Amino acid sequence: MKGDIGVIGLAVMGQNLILNMNDKGFKVVAFNRTTSKVDDFLNGPAKNTHVIGAHSLQELVEKLESPRKIMLMVRAGAVVDEFIEHLLPLLDKGDIIIDGGNANYPDSTRRTRELAEKGIRFVGAGVSGGEEGARNGPSIMPGGNEEAWPYVKPILQAIAAKTPAGEPCCDWVGRDGAGHFVKMVHNGIEYGDMQLICEAYQFMKDGLGLSYDEMHEIFKLWNTTELDSYLIQITTDILGFKDENGEPLVEKILDTAGQKGTGKWTGINALDLGIPLTLISEAVFARCVSSFKAQRVEAAKLFESRISPIEGSKTEWVEALREALLASKIISYAQGFMLIREASEVNDWALNYGNTALLWREGCIIRSAFLGNIRDAYEANPDLVFLGGDDYFRRILENCLPAWRKVVAKSIEAGIPMPCMASAITFLDGYTSARLPANLLQAQRDYFGAHTYERTDKPRGEFFHTNWTGTGGDTASTTYDV
Amino acid sequence: MKGDIGVIGLAVMGQNLILNMNDKGFKVVAFNRTTSKVDDFLNGPAKNTHVIGAHSLQELVEKLESPRKIMLMVRAGAVVDEFIEHLLPLLDKGDIIIDGGNANYPDSTRRTRELAEKGIRFVGAGVSGGEEGARNGPSIMPGGNEEAWPYVKPILQAIAAKTPAGEPCCDWVGRDGAGHFVKMVHNGIEYGDMQLICEAYQFMKDGLGLSYDEMHEIFKLWNTTELDSYLIQITTDILGFKDENGEPLVEKILDTAGQKGTGKWTGINALDLGIPLTLISEAVFARCVSSFKAQRVEAAKLFESRISPIEGSKTEWVEALREALLASKIISYAQGFMLIREASEVNDWALNYGNTALLWREGCIIRSAFLGNIRDAYEANPDLVFLGGDDYFRRILENCLPAWRKVVAKSIEAGIPMPCMASAITFLDGYTSARLPANLLQAQRDYFGAHTYERTDKPRGEFFHTNWTGTGGDTASTTYDV
Repeated sequence: MKGDIGVIGLAVMGQNLILNMNDKGFKVVAFNRTTSKVDDFLNGPAKNTHVIGAHSLQELVEKLESPRKIMLMVRAGAVVDEFIEHLLPLLDKGDIIIDGGNANYPDSTRRTRELAEKGIRFVGAGVSGGEEGARNGPSIMPGGNEEAWPYVKPILQAIAAKTPAGEPCCDWVGRDGAGHFVKMVHNGIEYGDMQLICEAYQFMKDGLGLSYDEMHEIFKLWNTTELDSYLIQITTDILGFKDENGEPLVEKILDTAGQKGTGKWTGINALDLGIPLTLISEAVFARCVSSFKAQRVEAAKLFESRISPIEGSKTEWVEALREALLASKIISYAQGFMLIREASEVNDWALNYGNTALLWREGCIIRSAFLGNIRDAYEANPDLVFLGGDDYFRRILENCLPAWRKVVAKSIEAGIPMPCMASAITFLDGYTSARLPANLLQAQRDYFGAHTYERTDKPRGEFFHTNWTGTGGDTASTTYDV
Repeated sequence: MKGDIGVIGLAVMGQNLILNMNDKGFKVVAFNRTTSKVDDFLNGPAKNTHVIGAHSLQELVEKLESPRKIMLMVRAGAVVDEFIEHLLPLLDKGDIIIDGGNANYPDSTRRTRELAEKGIRFVGAGVSGGEEGARNGPSIMPGGNEEAWPYVKPILQAIAAKTPAGEPCCDWVGRDGAGHFVKMVHNGIEYGDMQLICEAYQFMKDGLGLSYDEMHEIFKLWNTTELDSYLIQITTDILGFKDENGEPLVEKILDTAGQKGTGKWTGINALDLGIPLTLISEAVFARCVSSFKAQRVEAAKLFESRISPIEGSKTEWVEALREALLASKIISYAQGFMLIREASEVNDWALNYGNTALLWREGCIIRSAFLGNIRDAYEANPDLVFLGGDDYFRRILENCLPAWRKVVAKSIEAGIPMPCMASAITFLDGYTSARLPANLLQAQRDYFGAHTYERTDKPRGEFFHTNWTGTGGDTASTTYDV
């Protein structure tokens, strides 16, 4: 009896996905480049399962049913290409390679096309959920060669998380690298959500002087509100976690975070496509700043910086903070979906935005009740250009605005860095301004570069140039684009 | 008598550079793809000069002294490669091609290397100053093949702007695309400076209700302070400029700005290199938001948004605003120089930071007195990692901080979008924090992805993993990088 699917890569995600597939009745063939890991796995976590080991790619391929389905759970980048290269001579036309790692989506587009030319069907599937999600039901975002979908759908949907209504958090996203693109935006949003929680935590800890036990209780309570989500839940756990001395472990963790991944790709794509993902970009940059630990320690001495304690009712501030966090989060998702829409249009992917929200509803790191509301918003109006334009979210934003303004203004007065909450509110204020000061900017560009401008009292598309100084020429700029 | 240098491309920048070279005693051969422009130029702006026309590349090449120096002033991108391709068969070994357009710096790196293999010396020279700068003295940032420098130096330094002390704002930057890299950061900073001025303008106009005549006088005054700069000067002119009806022209200009250029490249490079250029990124995104005019008009109706008038002494607010603008500007330049340092180290360019400030001191769009102080700071301490660490700038930041906090907090309360000023202050608050809340972020990453963390009570480089729930495994994550 041959295997239903092969999995290459036995790090934590690969192992857990295999055990998950096994639970759902699939026969999995497991391979790892360092083959001792195969034996460790079979004799350890996979003991008493139907998992089969393979000690070479040849053996892996021989043990799989046709058309073969092989899932790579290896480090993104060159390693994926190497495995594909080694697999190719062993595969038959129609076989399927699934990359479940964190590929940069243009790589998945390239692999889909290159492999299609060789008769191999490629699926770039974003997988989110961390080790626990992989084991019990991750969110899976497959894209690439749609011919492969009927073959991998039964397995991927079986192992995926389910919504409260029982729908699998796994459905076909679109062609090329669409699956990994959506996964990238998911991770960017994850960066934003995490930074927002950190900002709320610092406001409570350094501004309001709350204890870990108090913060633990507050997050626990928040998790029963619109903020109900996995990240709020684990933050509750973390704030309540005591080390062997009965002290909060999180207080002893070094405050430096890396940013070498999909968060920065999201920001880069946003800049490239001209979509203002201000919150996610600030979140990525906040990680950069956190990583400059030694510089920060020096700068703190130089500026004798300290945070001013925040006066007033702690209960009221905490509720205001909750509203600021919720409203900021809506902005981040609104920006994220703007990027998904733009990418879908530019790449002709025809993405379904409600479906995207559904994929993230359970299983993944950003899973939340809130994503159900986002799905509803796009089901009601697939053409929604700004999530805040949906009634449900608009009402929340309006209700939260006074508290949100108060919290961000106070953080700036007190010296508590809250780049994401601040960025979210300046974005909303800009986006809801019928008139922005960019008229001055256009005048500047025309002044120094003869870039021309449009006028409010003339139709769009009619361009004007003013000789502002009386000394410049009338030649419009064509080569000098600032 | 042959020409000293050839210039290809007779749009505004090319024409003005040629006239500038002619003034300095160089014989220029001018060419344009649409050759009628050559005649128009010779019979128009170049009448009674020593400029020679060429109606084909062949003619251009024949009319130049050896080694030939040919400067391209054409649209960045494919057009540059096309001209290089057409020129190559006509050139001799040792000839020099200078690209004075707004190339993306990796293109200049590639061209330097490809042309060096063919015996042609390539110079990627960033040129800033708009039409007026090009005519009277631009800032020029040349990089690429250093063998070319002795040949082009006399011309480029002659036409470049001069500092008050008489130094040319043109010097060798470094190899590969270093010149265009520095030009890119210049443009990114320009994006930031322009957006900061727009934010101050909107605060005055919509928050304080000042008239154009009042704002014109304020900017005029500001230009006599540390803010003394070209952009403040032209803003003064623009605010005072009346149309044929005696009304402020700028008020009638459409408030939408594009962002298809070097500003976004700066943000992309910052994300890629992990350097927090928060202000420039917010400035680029602010342009994106401005371009969504139709969406903004709709959103403004939906949110019934309006700006609250700002109470209190207008004079005091205006001075606070000046300090907020100045301090924010320092942060933007500090971030920009962080990026230049990182790029220099990563690419082994050995850039001279004080020299970079000198190049921008005059001639370019961001020229200012302020850049003289930046140069002094790096001359005094070439290892300065944060411009705010220099005594002069630290004192300004400290002095401005109270007013800056007040202005940004007020803008958030009043609903005036000031993304750049807000971003600058949240950056400074983060950068001067010895302790940030990223410890919680690291705990989250370890919780859901077994990413491990470092501890404050252990040496750096020692990594810990906690089984936060008691149910996860002990396998650390190696493939799943969030």
